[in-house]
Amino acid sequence: MSITETNLRVRLAGEGPTVSRIAYGVWRLLDDREGASVRRVLDKIHACLDCGITTFDHADIYGGYGCEEAFGEALRASPGLREKIEIVTKCGIMLVDPARPENRIKHYDYSRRHIVSSVERSLRNLATDHLDVLLLHRPSPLLDPDEVAGTFERLRREGKVLHLGVSNFAPSQLEMLQSRLASRIVTNQVEVNPLRQDAFVDGTLDQCQRLGISPMAWSPTAGGRIFHGGGDVERRVRGALGELARKYAATPDAILFAWLLKHPSKMVPVLGTNRIDRIRSAASALAIDLDLQDWFFLWTASTGWEVP
Amino acid sequence: MSITETNLRVRLAGEGPTVSRIAYGVWRLLDDREGASVRRVLDKIHACLDCGITTFDHADIYGGYGCEEAFGEALRASPGLREKIEIVTKCGIMLVDPARPENRIKHYDYSRRHIVSSVERSLRNLATDHLDVLLLHRPSPLLDPDEVAGTFERLRREGKVLHLGVSNFAPSQLEMLQSRLASRIVTNQVEVNPLRQDAFVDGTLDQCQRLGISPMAWSPTAGGRIFHGGGDVERRVRGALGELARKYAATPDAILFAWLLKHPSKMVPVLGTNRIDRIRSAASALAIDLDLQDWFFLWTASTGWEVP
Amino acid sequence: MSITETNLRVRLAGEGPTVSRIAYGVWRLLDDREGASVRRVLDKIHACLDCGITTFDHADIYGGYGCEEAFGEALRASPGLREKIEIVTKCGIMLVDPARPENRIKHYDYSRRHIVSSVERSLRNLATDHLDVLLLHRPSPLLDPDEVAGTFERLRREGKVLHLGVSNFAPSQLEMLQSRLASRIVTNQVEVNPLRQDAFVDGTLDQCQRLGISPMAWSPTAGGRIFHGGGDVERRVRGALGELARKYAATPDAILFAWLLKHPSKMVPVLGTNRIDRIRSAASALAIDLDLQDWFFLWTASTGWEVP
Repeated sequence: MSITETNLRVRLAGEGPTVSRIAYGVWRLLDDREGASVRRVLDKIHACLDCGITTFDHADIYGGYGCEEAFGEALRASPGLREKIEIVTKCGIMLVDPARPENRIKHYDYSRRHIVSSVERSLRNLATDHLDVLLLHRPSPLLDPDEVAGTFERLRREGKVLHLGVSNFAPSQLEMLQSRLASRIVTNQVEVNPLRQDAFVDGTLDQCQRLGISPMAWSPTAGGRIFHGGGDVERRVRGALGELARKYAATPDAILFAWLLKHPSKMVPVLGTNRIDRIRSAASALAIDLDLQDWFFLWTASTGWEVP
Repeated sequence: MSITETNLRVRLAGEGPTVSRIAYGVWRLLDDREGASVRRVLDKIHACLDCGITTFDHADIYGGYGCEEAFGEALRASPGLREKIEIVTKCGIMLVDPARPENRIKHYDYSRRHIVSSVERSLRNLATDHLDVLLLHRPSPLLDPDEVAGTFERLRREGKVLHLGVSNFAPSQLEMLQSRLASRIVTNQVEVNPLRQDAFVDGTLDQCQRLGISPMAWSPTAGGRIFHGGGDVERRVRGALGELARKYAATPDAILFAWLLKHPSKMVPVLGTNRIDRIRSAASALAIDLDLQDWFFLWTASTGWEVP
Repeated sequence: MSITETNLRVRLAGEGPTVSRIAYGVWRLLDDREGASVRRVLDKIHACLDCGITTFDHADIYGGYGCEEAFGEALRASPGLREKIEIVTKCGIMLVDPARPENRIKHYDYSRRHIVSSVERSLRNLATDHLDVLLLHRPSPLLDPDEVAGTFERLRREGKVLHLGVSNFAPSQLEMLQSRLASRIVTNQVEVNPLRQDAFVDGTLDQCQRLGISPMAWSPTAGGRIFHGGGDVERRVRGALGELARKYAATPDAILFAWLLKHPSKMVPVLGTNRIDRIRSAASALAIDLDLQDWFFLWTASTGWEVP
């Protein structure tokens, strides 16, 4: 399989933005051993672009409310770069953090007031006049779908947020919110990896396919546990990845991403690494067409038993 | 926040009846230490009306099939009272009870024959010619939605039952029944309280919000366990309620009801007490606008960990 | 209750085929102590027809990929028989089996290529030019609803498959596939019996009733465990069946089938036996109208506690 425009990009939910098949997650941007200077951030952005990765996944809270700003400084220093990328960011989690002294307890806020102020802060931090996609970071038991829908419609009319998505939403929560929106929820960003198969069987990915939503997959490596975890399951999955890597003459990372990319929902894995070699390695997955039996080989390595 | 018409009443499901934001549950009407005389029952009804509580929640089976009749005698003794209140009652649970010698095993019956005879008995017992809302008390594995819908349509045409609701229904059960009805299911009465958060996360309240149904919350105090239970969770919840009661200069009961009233589904808690001071105390919740972080403070006191 | 045309047959999903209220499952056709000769297979088919059972439930994989062929030989030997029966078969499970040396690991395949070749093989094996119903045997995490729907539409236009159904599908999976089909999914064949009540409470049968789908129930005897199992639950269920058998002057098998037949979804149990007396015994269930309380008596014998 060669890397072509077709397998490099996907349009979210038919009417959503066109994004790269792999997104780069900036979650740990400030944890880079080589620092978070404008130079370093730009190096990583360009490494992504060189691999066809144009979509960057943020959240207001990443890096103690600091990642957006570090990324925004890189954009400011590099005129024209904004037009080459898509920015996804999130709102709604309220951390107890020195940067937010008003928060006495971790909670969620999807009031009009908070969504608007969070978006406006993200726009300033990211040095941009629009977000391609805004995600509601986690479902709240107090989420009022009418208030959220009205707020998003206003932000969309103002050109500040082009598309709305959700993250970690159960099907019933997504359906509740969708019922109030004139436009489509363009993605549901959920945890998916060989150690975390829930989304395959609990209706989350079924709903995405039914509604034509492309899910995003956070933590494709289970936060590194797939490569470093010491349990039986981790060892089995690592063994299977190694065996397939040899068969396909690829890296285990690439096999892992190819496993996610094979899902018919056109899932967009979110790559979270500060190492440029790993960006390239993951992106090489776009050229791998994993055989059906090999896909189940990795599935089965994780569950520990054959499919029913 | 002051108590106004707006926050005192809610219209169930858009087309349903207008009810008070708090309902009074007669479950334990016959367990009152001061007896169940017409005088005593009227005292409690008038205490409710004085607080803006006009909706009374019954079931055929309450008090060993005896509560409806005790309530009906009070209505009979007080002409004009029926017009000031809304009556909700339930059918479908078949208890093994001296009052029902034909029942050999506890079961459910949603046949046309049983629903009609249960409604007619409730009308006689309650001394009224119509029920504002009839609830199916619990889902039955043998519920036939066509038979139930046909039966309700007949009862509605006859003016005997104005609206249909359900109780303890899973989303799939409610959706199945709704698919056969010309009118909306106006409520799903489920157990909700800080110790029982299932409805917030299992899709029940999401479905209510999506369909515009106002749920009713039974057992807001977890059957008293919140105030008297000896476990760690109960102690944590009780501690949090006490702290918030001091902050808002309110009773812990009022905080508990304010916590339920804050949900955007416009949930109607069902207050079940024989003490007139507790009716007043709970009703004072209508004047409390619980702060978002305080809401999560009580949520977190129950779960024992911060939200994800 | 007498056996009439009305209770002998049911039309699946309104637009699907008319099938017998009990189907005969050929799962163990090759395990018959009396062999699988054309004569023996025809004896069982005729025993079914004599009892009003006209629907035969196959799968490509049954009997190590051998049952369809044994059945087909009987059809070939008996001209005119095909017109008297309905054939259901399944595809999608890929067994590691000497008959399929290309399978290295148990997996599922719902690609166009596999579905078409599996159907064409089933047609040859069964000596027929059409399947009345094709079932997708188990949900696959990689099922692409567009590919499956397109493939089925082609097979239907060619007259090779008249109707599509599924088996062991969760509601979200059925709904996903249905969203792409012009015609109705006519059945969901799931495990249901007094020891396996999941489908009653997890939304599966609710969805069937909502969509007007008649489910099929595989393993009505829990693979024989109801009659031979040594656990407490099995003993309780067996005791209850015995008590009801005496009351209705019927066999325990007949009570078991009557219990399934009572469900308002018009569930079609799949009878899997090689004994002709048991075919007759199960079919006699069609004349039994189980009393509501007796139905809950068997339900309760299984759960071990009264309904809530």
